[in-house]
Amino acid sequence: MIEPTNATPISELGEFAFIRHLTENFSLKLSSSVLGVGDDAAVVKYAKRKTVISTQLFTEGVHFNLMYFPLKHLGYKAVVATISNIYAMNATPRHILVSIGISEKFSVEAVDELYSGIAAACDYYDIDLVGGDTTASVTGMVINITAVGEADKEQLIYRKGALKNDLICVTGDLGGAYMGLQLLNRENEVFKTNPNFRPQFEGYDYILHRQLKPEARKDISDIFKKLEITPTSMIDISDGLSSDIMQICKASELGCRIYEEKIPMDQTTINMGAELNMNPIVAALNGGDDFEMLFTIPIKYHDKVKNNPDITVIGHMTDASEGICLVATGGSEIPLTAQGWKE
Amino acid sequence: MIEPTNATPISELGEFAFIRHLTENFSLKLSSSVLGVGDDAAVVKYAKRKTVISTQLFTEGVHFNLMYFPLKHLGYKAVVATISNIYAMNATPRHILVSIGISEKFSVEAVDELYSGIAAACDYYDIDLVGGDTTASVTGMVINITAVGEADKEQLIYRKGALKNDLICVTGDLGGAYMGLQLLNRENEVFKTNPNFRPQFEGYDYILHRQLKPEARKDISDIFKKLEITPTSMIDISDGLSSDIMQICKASELGCRIYEEKIPMDQTTINMGAELNMNPIVAALNGGDDFEMLFTIPIKYHDKVKNNPDITVIGHMTDASEGICLVATGGSEIPLTAQGWKE
Repeated sequence: MIEPTNATPISELGEFAFIRHLTENFSLKLSSSVLGVGDDAAVVKYAKRKTVISTQLFTEGVHFNLMYFPLKHLGYKAVVATISNIYAMNATPRHILVSIGISEKFSVEAVDELYSGIAAACDYYDIDLVGGDTTASVTGMVINITAVGEADKEQLIYRKGALKNDLICVTGDLGGAYMGLQLLNRENEVFKTNPNFRPQFEGYDYILHRQLKPEARKDISDIFKKLEITPTSMIDISDGLSSDIMQICKASELGCRIYEEKIPMDQTTINMGAELNMNPIVAALNGGDDFEMLFTIPIKYHDKVKNNPDITVIGHMTDASEGICLVATGGSEIPLTAQGWKE
Repeated sequence: MIEPTNATPISELGEFAFIRHLTENFSLKLSSSVLGVGDDAAVVKYAKRKTVISTQLFTEGVHFNLMYFPLKHLGYKAVVATISNIYAMNATPRHILVSIGISEKFSVEAVDELYSGIAAACDYYDIDLVGGDTTASVTGMVINITAVGEADKEQLIYRKGALKNDLICVTGDLGGAYMGLQLLNRENEVFKTNPNFRPQFEGYDYILHRQLKPEARKDISDIFKKLEITPTSMIDISDGLSSDIMQICKASELGCRIYEEKIPMDQTTINMGAELNMNPIVAALNGGDDFEMLFTIPIKYHDKVKNNPDITVIGHMTDASEGICLVATGGSEIPLTAQGWKE
């Protein structure tokens, strides 16, 4: 992390003034926001709709490395990762609450950078920041984001609704975020041994963008409406295709076949794989952080999705007894396994 | 922290099995819980009522010391501290989401202890655990709790509603939690130099209880109904009376007079102060963690509260120009100041 030269210690402001300083630029935009930051709790109203809530914790050294992850991007990405869970229910995120734990090494300006990323995400996704907690941490930085949204009950899509023979679909392309991380890691290692080294990122804008400024699929609900399809199950791809399809299979008590050759990947992701001597399918299966949507639809909808540029059919659901398998390009079947906590 | 002898490494279970293990004993009790743990997000319904949300972050070494704070108590207290904010809005907490970050030093059994405390709090306060996040932390333990509740709009009590001449009231007694912490710290210091030392806690049950197993004022709404009073503002006392009355004064754009001799303290708190050669008023003003309620009422309600064993009138609101003052027992006026982040 490169500390701004005009660094102000947080102690200079004091805790309460610091919290006011961080949140004073967040005004409430939505009619559903009754009360925002500054009281014991936030108050929101979703009329008769259901309240959908998800929370996510990000810890320094596990989820992010401040050596090369700019704080503004970190704030943006943390919001994206959390609201992606709300979109994955086919619901609409409306509000977030942000808890941060910071040590003395962070200046007011550094935390301002983090909050400018949070503010940018709130703007782009039309979300109000309505609360949070700011506290000390004796170790690294910790961020917890809670996202709250709304949906009619009929519109919600759970993980557990997939049926046998349903088609498995993904939006966008996979593996890019992971390859972007590999690139950042590689350049950072060189930089550590030679501080005069200038990182080589030319031609890799796409995967860097996927890692450093990913977007959530806020269009997913509209895509379904436009195509007139109702998915039977859905999850966002945050842990990697392998883990996430397992979640759908377990929740739906089914197995699946996923075809390696069908998995959509950007050419930059494939090129980076070649350069690193790594099969890019590994990035798609185990990488995570792509925030694309993985969903299942009845086979009768095949014609509706087959030529859609946003959607790729990558396999189908099977009996649980047939297991959770990747059919490799050569035709061999490989059982998929979930990664544990990822770096 | 004393590690159980039958410690199982979390890696032995794997992340997903571990999360299932932690949450499988939490069943949904409430009709407002539509979907609990296990999907991308939780779903709850509060009909036409408002949704009230608060989130709080607890970090090891800042908010708790695992040398003497048992994990079960930590889980219980973290829930209490968070839902106390919902009660402080005069709302009813219904749901919590729990994020934890843990390093390899924690065994499955240790985290089970933490969750048994969370479960005990859910039982006692009639709350459903509906979601969360479990992740690695390369340093200490981190816990974030988000509490969600409901209220009719008319019933909500904000910090900002206090009026000039309103009486300032507190429930219960103050400073006990802080004195309990001083006692634990003292005994821990002795223990560190002599591991055969047995801590001396006799006669101090009350303050230990206030520190290790505090309760939130879930009765506050009923107290108001029974007395037929409608407070003009309210906050829970989590940072200490001094900080918390300042929040009401700032939000309401007023000043106040608080009378030292009126501040309710338990005899054990006073005794511990004498033993530590410390004015117990300091514990009440700056200690925090008492989770009592601080609220203001119109002066016309004085007769209704004056003989209530749960409520003490400690002062009144004034013009902002008169400042935020403690009137000491001798009659001198001392401006109150807020503590920053507390240990």
